[in-house]
Amino acid sequence: MGDLKWIKKFKMGDGFWGRYAKLVRDVVLPYQEDALNDRIEGAEKSHCIENFRMAAEKLRTGKCSGEFYGMVFQDSDVAKWLEGAAYSLAQKPDAALEKRCDEIIELIGAAQHEDGYLNTYFTVKEPDKRWTNLQEAHELYCEGHMIEAAVAYAECTGKTRLLDIMCAMADHTYRHFVEEGAEGYPGHPEIELALMRLYRCTGQEKYKELALHFINVRGVDSDYYDREKQRHDWSVWGNRSGSHDKEYAQNAAPVRMQTKAVGHAVRAVYLYTGMADAALETGDESLAQACKVLWENITQCRMYVTGSIGSAYEGESFTKDYHLPGDTAYAETCASVGLIFFCNKMLYLDRNGRYADVMERALYNGVLAGMQLDGRRFFYVNPLEALPGISGEAQTHRHALPVRPKWFACACCPPNVARLLSSLSEYAWHRDGGTLYSNLFVDGTLDVSEEFGGTVALETAYPYEGRLTYRFTPKGESMDVRFAIRVPAWSGGVEIRVNGAPAQQEVESKDGYAYLHGTFLAPTEVTVEFAMPVRKLYTNSKVAANTGKAALERGPLIYCAEGADNGGDVLSLSLKRGGTVTVSDYLPEKLCGIRELYAQGYRSETGGALYSYEEPVRREDTITFVPYYTWANRGLNQMRVWIPEQ
Amino acid sequence: MGDLKWIKKFKMGDGFWGRYAKLVRDVVLPYQEDALNDRIEGAEKSHCIENFRMAAEKLRTGKCSGEFYGMVFQDSDVAKWLEGAAYSLAQKPDAALEKRCDEIIELIGAAQHEDGYLNTYFTVKEPDKRWTNLQEAHELYCEGHMIEAAVAYAECTGKTRLLDIMCAMADHTYRHFVEEGAEGYPGHPEIELALMRLYRCTGQEKYKELALHFINVRGVDSDYYDREKQRHDWSVWGNRSGSHDKEYAQNAAPVRMQTKAVGHAVRAVYLYTGMADAALETGDESLAQACKVLWENITQCRMYVTGSIGSAYEGESFTKDYHLPGDTAYAETCASVGLIFFCNKMLYLDRNGRYADVMERALYNGVLAGMQLDGRRFFYVNPLEALPGISGEAQTHRHALPVRPKWFACACCPPNVARLLSSLSEYAWHRDGGTLYSNLFVDGTLDVSEEFGGTVALETAYPYEGRLTYRFTPKGESMDVRFAIRVPAWSGGVEIRVNGAPAQQEVESKDGYAYLHGTFLAPTEVTVEFAMPVRKLYTNSKVAANTGKAALERGPLIYCAEGADNGGDVLSLSLKRGGTVTVSDYLPEKLCGIRELYAQGYRSETGGALYSYEEPVRREDTITFVPYYTWANRGLNQMRVWIPEQ
Repeated sequence: MGDLKWIKKFKMGDGFWGRYAKLVRDVVLPYQEDALNDRIEGAEKSHCIENFRMAAEKLRTGKCSGEFYGMVFQDSDVAKWLEGAAYSLAQKPDAALEKRCDEIIELIGAAQHEDGYLNTYFTVKEPDKRWTNLQEAHELYCEGHMIEAAVAYAECTGKTRLLDIMCAMADHTYRHFVEEGAEGYPGHPEIELALMRLYRCTGQEKYKELALHFINVRGVDSDYYDREKQRHDWSVWGNRSGSHDKEYAQNAAPVRMQTKAVGHAVRAVYLYTGMADAALETGDESLAQACKVLWENITQCRMYVTGSIGSAYEGESFTKDYHLPGDTAYAETCASVGLIFFCNKMLYLDRNGRYADVMERALYNGVLAGMQLDGRRFFYVNPLEALPGISGEAQTHRHALPVRPKWFACACCPPNVARLLSSLSEYAWHRDGGTLYSNLFVDGTLDVSEEFGGTVALETAYPYEGRLTYRFTPKGESMDVRFAIRVPAWSGGVEIRVNGAPAQQEVESKDGYAYLHGTFLAPTEVTVEFAMPVRKLYTNSKVAANTGKAALERGPLIYCAEGADNGGDVLSLSLKRGGTVTVSDYLPEKLCGIRELYAQGYRSETGGALYSYEEPVRREDTITFVPYYTWANRGLNQMRVWIPEQ
Repeated sequence: MGDLKWIKKFKMGDGFWGRYAKLVRDVVLPYQEDALNDRIEGAEKSHCIENFRMAAEKLRTGKCSGEFYGMVFQDSDVAKWLEGAAYSLAQKPDAALEKRCDEIIELIGAAQHEDGYLNTYFTVKEPDKRWTNLQEAHELYCEGHMIEAAVAYAECTGKTRLLDIMCAMADHTYRHFVEEGAEGYPGHPEIELALMRLYRCTGQEKYKELALHFINVRGVDSDYYDREKQRHDWSVWGNRSGSHDKEYAQNAAPVRMQTKAVGHAVRAVYLYTGMADAALETGDESLAQACKVLWENITQCRMYVTGSIGSAYEGESFTKDYHLPGDTAYAETCASVGLIFFCNKMLYLDRNGRYADVMERALYNGVLAGMQLDGRRFFYVNPLEALPGISGEAQTHRHALPVRPKWFACACCPPNVARLLSSLSEYAWHRDGGTLYSNLFVDGTLDVSEEFGGTVALETAYPYEGRLTYRFTPKGESMDVRFAIRVPAWSGGVEIRVNGAPAQQEVESKDGYAYLHGTFLAPTEVTVEFAMPVRKLYTNSKVAANTGKAALERGPLIYCAEGADNGGDVLSLSLKRGGTVTVSDYLPEKLCGIRELYAQGYRSETGGALYSYEEPVRREDTITFVPYYTWANRGLNQMRVWIPEQ
């Protein structure tokens, strides 16, 4: 058993992702730890740890010396940080950090009721209202995140204290919803995927059963939240008026009958991740089919080219098919993280490189753009077009900031990025029976001695430069491995060599993977060369925002034009139809190391009037593009992914 | 004195605007009258008249048999309808209609307090709260509209009963705010422009003084609403929380220091209209200058090409310079009506054809599109792009309906259109000293016997076809008139003939007008030929939504492409750079009579995938355009004004 496959077996290299792993370890996690402890001057108070302290005090003494502070789901910030810290510890032991984690875990334990119940909001503020407002109160959401932390901490450090705490809470939840038959299901899905992890970590069937329970009852009883409100009329937000929005809540129909990705985008993909994982572990075909339909709907009708999802600030949600506005996108960083979770499970469920293509797209673009290059500031919202003077200012653009702000009152995205980036091995590598899959090309060394009798090391350059080098090193006599390398949709061809010799004849191509069966007696080098042309991307003409426009992509990276490289003005630029695009040398000093693109295009001068009868004067110009993930690292300036093509 | 210059002197012809005048008379006003009286099945109740009945009952008996119903500004619906009815009576007497109007006016009088105060919301529902919530409660707004109705009814019918009622209310208001020195100014500006009309109608200086008072105190004390709230904490909408939004309320600075058109667009242009009118009547240069700056800001940074204003549903408001999204525009019909009011006053203040150009743009496009061709349904919101499946459905597009709905609970726009279209003469013709101005080309006969000793008749074809024929007919010996014809910015040249002979040498061109001095001894025909090419319009590249796009215009009409004429799909269409556009014959059967445009362009096929590396297959195609004001008269279909040009 065990949920995490590689976390302790993968040693990340110093490449592109190594820099990020180090940032997470050295900057992001320490900053967040300070935030959780309210040690950051000028930032909004978190009060997370303090909430646990008060809950523990109340359980110990019956009294509480302060008041709960923060979001109703404030506990989850501690959980996500602990999960990220656990991954970090697995990669780089740090006794002091581990000690602090252990202390927090003891504090969490002290805030747990005798019956297993754990939630500081309810313990401190609403002790009589447990389980009476599933729609809003995020109890199951916080539980889910803490379960994930518990699984991670147990598997990364071998210490089971938090796991025991969360098993007790999960047992309590099982009693309430399954044994005692309480109605309802999570307002914010998350616990489904967490319970599947807990099941794999502990081997206990009841956790899988509880996950399935929440999945199965959802939307079968689509009026539950309204009934719940009638029975216990209280609100976390102060305005629980009217009937609840069934699209927002993903409960308009039983999950197996849902065909469109709707509502709050993070909730949606967390739910689908749990569904896919449950389908994987149970072989439930109807559930798997629903996941495929929803995944298709997202990726073919509702996803930005950056792998971001959620077209509207209102409800932080999906909207309608083909509605993908660039400047007002919500495109929450957490939603891209959740889409990666979903794709990762789909990849196990239905082995096809397209799931990894989307996972990679979301990772290199929608997720990475969420974090400043120095790891110190974050975007929640990742628009595809930034318009200083409008973005962050117009009523319709208040959410779409043109530069990353400091810490948020609702601190969901930064720790979500941290836990993802510090556990990339779980997404990069899969094993399925006798096959080892290389999905994402993350530098480092994977120890598969147990599975295949040796190690595989992967070396790349910034992000790939089209060339991957895998080194297989048997521990004993030989390594016998069916090795599958994902061939990304963006690649214009692939050439594989084994110790320098072409291996095309031994390679089987299937569903986006190149399969190579090898028995390596001695260290063996497998090199993979992808053709890596700059691609112009076009959008289905049903997407009104992108008609007549193109975007540039190279390898996994979507590019954008920023004012900083283009005389301050990207709105007057257009790409030349059929024009060439060239790639710069690697620029180690620029934006932590990038390659720029230079595209043939035009700059139009439209004069000073708002409207004119004069055709704009158009001059040939070269447009400079930088990787989308690096945008907004040079102060306030215009940014555009989709550029008119003329 | 007198406010209305031409209403009784202009007899509208049967042309383009004659059809609309007839629609207003035969369909719009009767429908609205039924609505005000709650006689329309299936429509939201208005209760307007009933509110007056209850207020009158309460004043008579001290008791009330029902409850106030509707918006806090429900009274204004009666006022706007009465104003429209007055204009209609001036053009076509109708004894039965006039009798019904008189009855309503008697009812209004019966709802007036002894001290002159009149407002059914306060009389029926909040008798103790008069003047305590200027921010929200629309008392001065309702008063303003009823003053406008009173002026119109007096000048159109000669009956002064309503005028007396409203003078008493205005006197009451003057006492309260000027003599007794009560603080504050209107939450929804409107009374300023109305008081200027009342001043001109009655000649009483105090009404001008009161208008100036409200204009002058606005924003000088920009915290008034917050103080008002502290003193009398009650809310019409139930959520008067936090400080008020000073941009929304146009009170962040004294009006003379305001340089950007901000906040609720209708409120803004009503305010500016009152300011311009006050500047006109007082010669206040600083006020005139502020109006010019605000007008420039609107028309050069914040106006749609259709003459619509208000880029956001949130606050029904202006947003930021160059933010002009097409599909999510608010572009309220009433705001275009208000912009016409503003332009009309600016034209008196600063004689320049550009104000009439914008007035015409708003009239033929932003306003007319607000009404279905049969006069039975209305848009509040006039987007420049409609996307069935998204428009009216996505969270961000709920306001932007793709087809016109029936009557609204908030019924502001339909009567606003009715009163404008039934008083077009006031905008079409101006007289300034010895000069008669023809601003808008509305078929009909103007009696200027008093001013110039004869009549002028104007004949055009749909809308103009580039040819105007003015017939001057002296009543006595001769007509001596300096005649100024606006030369629209869209015209490619103008040729003027007097009785068939070229008159170019006698014509003086200045600031968008062609001035012709004539002494006509016998009936004289002045013909004007405008070159009327189809124009491609381009937007300043600062407007992100329109980069790389063009729109088509011919004469005063903006055109759009609708799915109905283009195989159901306009999103895959692009205009050909440098391509030709041809004009159809006049099509009398289509959309109540139009000319279509046929533009060379392309249709792109982008395949089924959301994103593709394939350059879209592009085939030459002819794009059919219809006038924007006719859109959404053929059921649900795509519509687009701005089309990519390639």
